[in-house]
Amino acid sequence: MLIVMRSDAGPGDIERVLAVVERLGFRGHAMPGESRTAIGITGNEGSIDPANFENLPGVAEAIRVTKPYKLISRDLRSEKSIVQVGTSSIGDGSMTMIAGPCAVESREQLFETAEAVAASGAKFFRGGAFKPRTSPYAFQGLGEDGLKLLAEVREEFGLNIVTEAMDEKGIELVAKYGDCIQIGARNMQNFALLKYAGQANKPILLKRGLSATLDEFLLAAEYVMSEGNYQVILCERGIRTFADHARNTLDLSVIPAVRRISHLPIIVDPSHGTGHNYMVDAMARAGLAAGADGLIIEVHPKPSVALCDGAQALTTEQYLALYDQLDRLYQALNEKGEVAASPVSPAFTGVTTAARELS
Amino acid sequence: MLIVMRSDAGPGDIERVLAVVERLGFRGHAMPGESRTAIGITGNEGSIDPANFENLPGVAEAIRVTKPYKLISRDLRSEKSIVQVGTSSIGDGSMTMIAGPCAVESREQLFETAEAVAASGAKFFRGGAFKPRTSPYAFQGLGEDGLKLLAEVREEFGLNIVTEAMDEKGIELVAKYGDCIQIGARNMQNFALLKYAGQANKPILLKRGLSATLDEFLLAAEYVMSEGNYQVILCERGIRTFADHARNTLDLSVIPAVRRISHLPIIVDPSHGTGHNYMVDAMARAGLAAGADGLIIEVHPKPSVALCDGAQALTTEQYLALYDQLDRLYQALNEKGEVAASPVSPAFTGVTTAARELS
Amino acid sequence: MLIVMRSDAGPGDIERVLAVVERLGFRGHAMPGESRTAIGITGNEGSIDPANFENLPGVAEAIRVTKPYKLISRDLRSEKSIVQVGTSSIGDGSMTMIAGPCAVESREQLFETAEAVAASGAKFFRGGAFKPRTSPYAFQGLGEDGLKLLAEVREEFGLNIVTEAMDEKGIELVAKYGDCIQIGARNMQNFALLKYAGQANKPILLKRGLSATLDEFLLAAEYVMSEGNYQVILCERGIRTFADHARNTLDLSVIPAVRRISHLPIIVDPSHGTGHNYMVDAMARAGLAAGADGLIIEVHPKPSVALCDGAQALTTEQYLALYDQLDRLYQALNEKGEVAASPVSPAFTGVTTAARELS
Amino acid sequence: MLIVMRSDAGPGDIERVLAVVERLGFRGHAMPGESRTAIGITGNEGSIDPANFENLPGVAEAIRVTKPYKLISRDLRSEKSIVQVGTSSIGDGSMTMIAGPCAVESREQLFETAEAVAASGAKFFRGGAFKPRTSPYAFQGLGEDGLKLLAEVREEFGLNIVTEAMDEKGIELVAKYGDCIQIGARNMQNFALLKYAGQANKPILLKRGLSATLDEFLLAAEYVMSEGNYQVILCERGIRTFADHARNTLDLSVIPAVRRISHLPIIVDPSHGTGHNYMVDAMARAGLAAGADGLIIEVHPKPSVALCDGAQALTTEQYLALYDQLDRLYQALNEKGEVAASPVSPAFTGVTTAARELS
Repeated sequence: MLIVMRSDAGPGDIERVLAVVERLGFRGHAMPGESRTAIGITGNEGSIDPANFENLPGVAEAIRVTKPYKLISRDLRSEKSIVQVGTSSIGDGSMTMIAGPCAVESREQLFETAEAVAASGAKFFRGGAFKPRTSPYAFQGLGEDGLKLLAEVREEFGLNIVTEAMDEKGIELVAKYGDCIQIGARNMQNFALLKYAGQANKPILLKRGLSATLDEFLLAAEYVMSEGNYQVILCERGIRTFADHARNTLDLSVIPAVRRISHLPIIVDPSHGTGHNYMVDAMARAGLAAGADGLIIEVHPKPSVALCDGAQALTTEQYLALYDQLDRLYQALNEKGEVAASPVSPAFTGVTTAARELS
Repeated sequence: MLIVMRSDAGPGDIERVLAVVERLGFRGHAMPGESRTAIGITGNEGSIDPANFENLPGVAEAIRVTKPYKLISRDLRSEKSIVQVGTSSIGDGSMTMIAGPCAVESREQLFETAEAVAASGAKFFRGGAFKPRTSPYAFQGLGEDGLKLLAEVREEFGLNIVTEAMDEKGIELVAKYGDCIQIGARNMQNFALLKYAGQANKPILLKRGLSATLDEFLLAAEYVMSEGNYQVILCERGIRTFADHARNTLDLSVIPAVRRISHLPIIVDPSHGTGHNYMVDAMARAGLAAGADGLIIEVHPKPSVALCDGAQALTTEQYLALYDQLDRLYQALNEKGEVAASPVSPAFTGVTTAARELS
Repeated sequence: MLIVMRSDAGPGDIERVLAVVERLGFRGHAMPGESRTAIGITGNEGSIDPANFENLPGVAEAIRVTKPYKLISRDLRSEKSIVQVGTSSIGDGSMTMIAGPCAVESREQLFETAEAVAASGAKFFRGGAFKPRTSPYAFQGLGEDGLKLLAEVREEFGLNIVTEAMDEKGIELVAKYGDCIQIGARNMQNFALLKYAGQANKPILLKRGLSATLDEFLLAAEYVMSEGNYQVILCERGIRTFADHARNTLDLSVIPAVRRISHLPIIVDPSHGTGHNYMVDAMARAGLAAGADGLIIEVHPKPSVALCDGAQALTTEQYLALYDQLDRLYQALNEKGEVAASPVSPAFTGVTTAARELS
Repeated sequence: MLIVMRSDAGPGDIERVLAVVERLGFRGHAMPGESRTAIGITGNEGSIDPANFENLPGVAEAIRVTKPYKLISRDLRSEKSIVQVGTSSIGDGSMTMIAGPCAVESREQLFETAEAVAASGAKFFRGGAFKPRTSPYAFQGLGEDGLKLLAEVREEFGLNIVTEAMDEKGIELVAKYGDCIQIGARNMQNFALLKYAGQANKPILLKRGLSATLDEFLLAAEYVMSEGNYQVILCERGIRTFADHARNTLDLSVIPAVRRISHLPIIVDPSHGTGHNYMVDAMARAGLAAGADGLIIEVHPKPSVALCDGAQALTTEQYLALYDQLDRLYQALNEKGEVAASPVSPAFTGVTTAARELS
């Protein structure tokens, strides 16, 4: 159930609706929009009688939702969400670039990379202290020591830190040292972890699972949001298919599909999405052209000696050259408001219809 | 590195090798076989000099391993492993049947199902108290109360309890109330969970992930074993493909593939593997014919009112009829030692060669 | 539109219905069943008024069909079809075995293989004279000379010949020399070829395409049948997925799915379905246990020197040993009428419901 | 075997090499490049002794090829191929746009669409007269009458005609009326058709099969070229995966992968590649940004009444608006020579290494 408030509804009206929701034993999620606030109700197993709400002051409409998601949906919030990450924001119309090494290896490696990332103009730095590795015998990351090094990078270069957590303790640590908690592709349906993430006070970068459908991807975001953390950024990073020329198949059509249904920002990972250094530039450009809010890219001063995923990392020189190219492309794409800034490009509206289908 | 001991090596020889391994800063895993013990060494990042071991008393051979797995491999242990689960065992040549509802819903539902399961002759009971659900708004299980009901089933019917855990706390609780900890498909690469499972003192039923390759599946088992818990049962439960006539595509060819590489027992889940009641019998038979050690099947007294996955559950009547059919089939398949009891059917040996390829 | 005749309808009644169909500009396909005849109508683009038929003598019912298939469906013909191939038949309750080399290479190779196939008790011989090869530089088959050698095998050993055609001319040639025309997986949606096959006077063995859904597979059969050739045998030979331990993923759940919808016989190809000699026995057994009418298996006197697909071929010794095992298994499975003989195993009826869903 | 001629080799030198190739019983394919000619040799089953060629006048190098492709490869021809289609060319650095309806339905529909296509500035018109349809009961195209209408479009609007052929007769007809013969995705491994296409005197637009790997895709082009028709344009049109938000998954990473290996031009089909009108603009932009030479897009004056694939067709208004956007994007991408014009973007050379890997 979604409660759409009237544009002239005041804070008291919203409070009253939330109180009724609570009295019924459910949970209310107020999401302020540009002109009006919508309130999502979760926790109900069956349907709720709209009559409970329709006559309350300030309520414009009570909408039954048949799609399994509520909080991620454009029905709840028709304009795009902007997520604040440290000192910068994602989804605000500027090109988001999150760059850095796959894994934190050493202070030297980290600072050398961060220098290039800061020089490019990027606002976000990535690097893993806890690494999900297919083999138990592969490098597993430096743990809390790695997080401390990342915190030093923030101090030194003013970059906001995005880094992965793999369990409850990890979430606590990343929330302590970092600015954004990444949930990796292999944990996209680790529902226990999603719930902990939903209780954290830091934004969540949620990577699409290797075999996740769009519905499953959005419902994973819904898990986080249903616990009260609405700061979620989606990330397409390739799916598993039969194709063997790339490590994964980057599924860029998920970007217009997400835009049609959800208000959440979405970025693209062309590094994991291809697994090959030589494909990163083409797929980074393609991601922006498909309408993504930005990119997350792996950079390493010496990819050949990287402890993790060296084959896909750009050198700092390649990264700097590519950043300029991407920046110009993003400007060209968005200067007429044709692409990412508008949720669906102007020639192809029908958004309202799409949103209605959800209710 | 694998150390193969001579068949006349005594306990002291084994201790001595383990001590050397520890002194080098690694971890040794002694796995007794029929005629000799093999010792797997893990924790090394690079290669180890075989000269450290070759001259120790009782050592037959030190083998470098190039495949990423060690402890799961037939090189370490050439005969099939038998895993003790509560009062019964899996992989010992008898047909394993783990039956029960998707989720624990109530005492009545549980006892009615357990009565049928016990009557069939099955030794294991399944039922989830913690349910991984795609939507945060779907039934999530009864939690510890559900586990207590399962423990009552064991008391009342003598069935050994197999039930899922989704995080560290869940593993502690399942280890307390149940006999076997299930790791679900969506958590197959939840490496934090795999490590906790490796520290538990109960056997692990590890389900294959929806998009897991054979290597990734075996390495997930290796994660558990590398922490010291060698009691692992594998489970094929269907992979995600384009095919839409079944919920998943049951990939039975993984059974001969696992047999060729690993000593671990493997069972098949035709319920999740198909998602349709009407396919369960055909695919249960096919699983046994492909050489599986047994099956895990969903049974519910009234599938139409099940809180979870009702479409694929058998009624108790269907289950009882099917059990008899499967029991006869398993006997017919195995009476001549042609199928499951022998790791690779006699017409197709070459096991030694296969094992050699791994080193 | 399907016209179901009454069980006491005579040949004249059927003729009359067919004449009306023709007068309306459509095509009628009479399919005699055990107790009554059903007539499928194809060629109509929109719906047809049932009133055209309901009052004709001998007509029991006129059913609108909303599913895209008509002639393959159990609605048209509720009992299983039996397809006559040369001197033997497929789908009649006996285990079908089609064995032989991937490609016809030489008289010696062919006769040595055929001797083993005939000795086993199999009634059908396979071998390709026209080979669909991924590379233009790989061996493409002996062409008509190969077909002549296959015809010699029939003379000498009394085996019925199943061999592939790839274009219109090939269909003419195979129809001239062979007993059953195989349409390969890569041509399953070569609609021009399917139409030619529908005009041939020999039965068609139709292999499932590497990425064909069940609907597409059945519609490919419908293409052949809509041209008037109702002698179609389906063959599951593995689909393309991410899994890399086998050449393809054998999707055995398609067998119960086909049984539920269609009256056509279905066999399994564990050779192409796995690509590995050592998996063939396990998957051959699994195919029978899943309810297939039989198998098609590659055998070669010396797999190591085969010009095509040697890795998956059985030696003649392996084949003979496996045949015995399969024969016993098939008897055990079918002696109680539990598996293949009945279209859906007795514990899981609901066939009528399923059939209704189609109309 | 590839014979690389010296840059100062004359026509006589090339003739002499071709004569030797012929005398050895093989086939030589001379491919002139910017500075030198390379000669591919096909038809050999085993390896050829380089000594046959190395001492001939004008020969720089004789290279053994271990990859299964020769004629498509950058080893044979290091600069990109330009394919002449009617009065225009593809792969010459200009943005290729092939637009038109899925199927030729009527003169009115065709001319109304062609007017918009010509107005946009596009040089190529698409429209099917022979339609590969999953169901035998769906609209199959107007056949030769449709081709005649397409020829009228060329006369009237000066557009070059790209249209599909499905068998030998179709190829003859399309070659007679059209300018470029399309081989559809479902026929990508219809090897008989590929050979006929290789004997046609018109360029071939080869669409990637739904489950084709990169190697299979390139080998299908190799089939056409090995028959002597070197005018091949590749087309990515989406692959079949589990993802269900789009009809297919457009795999844009194949573009940099093709660039690295092959000199052939490649375009993208965002209409079939997504199946949804609302995704076409995003994926068209993404295709260009990934480095494609152009696009093939479905346009229909009234998509809602289209006889085929209406859901994915753009209206003429949408098409015209999109063309402008794409044209500006293509200019922006290519003005600095960063993307499509150069085979691999400048920051990521290593082409020579890649080419070497092939030999």
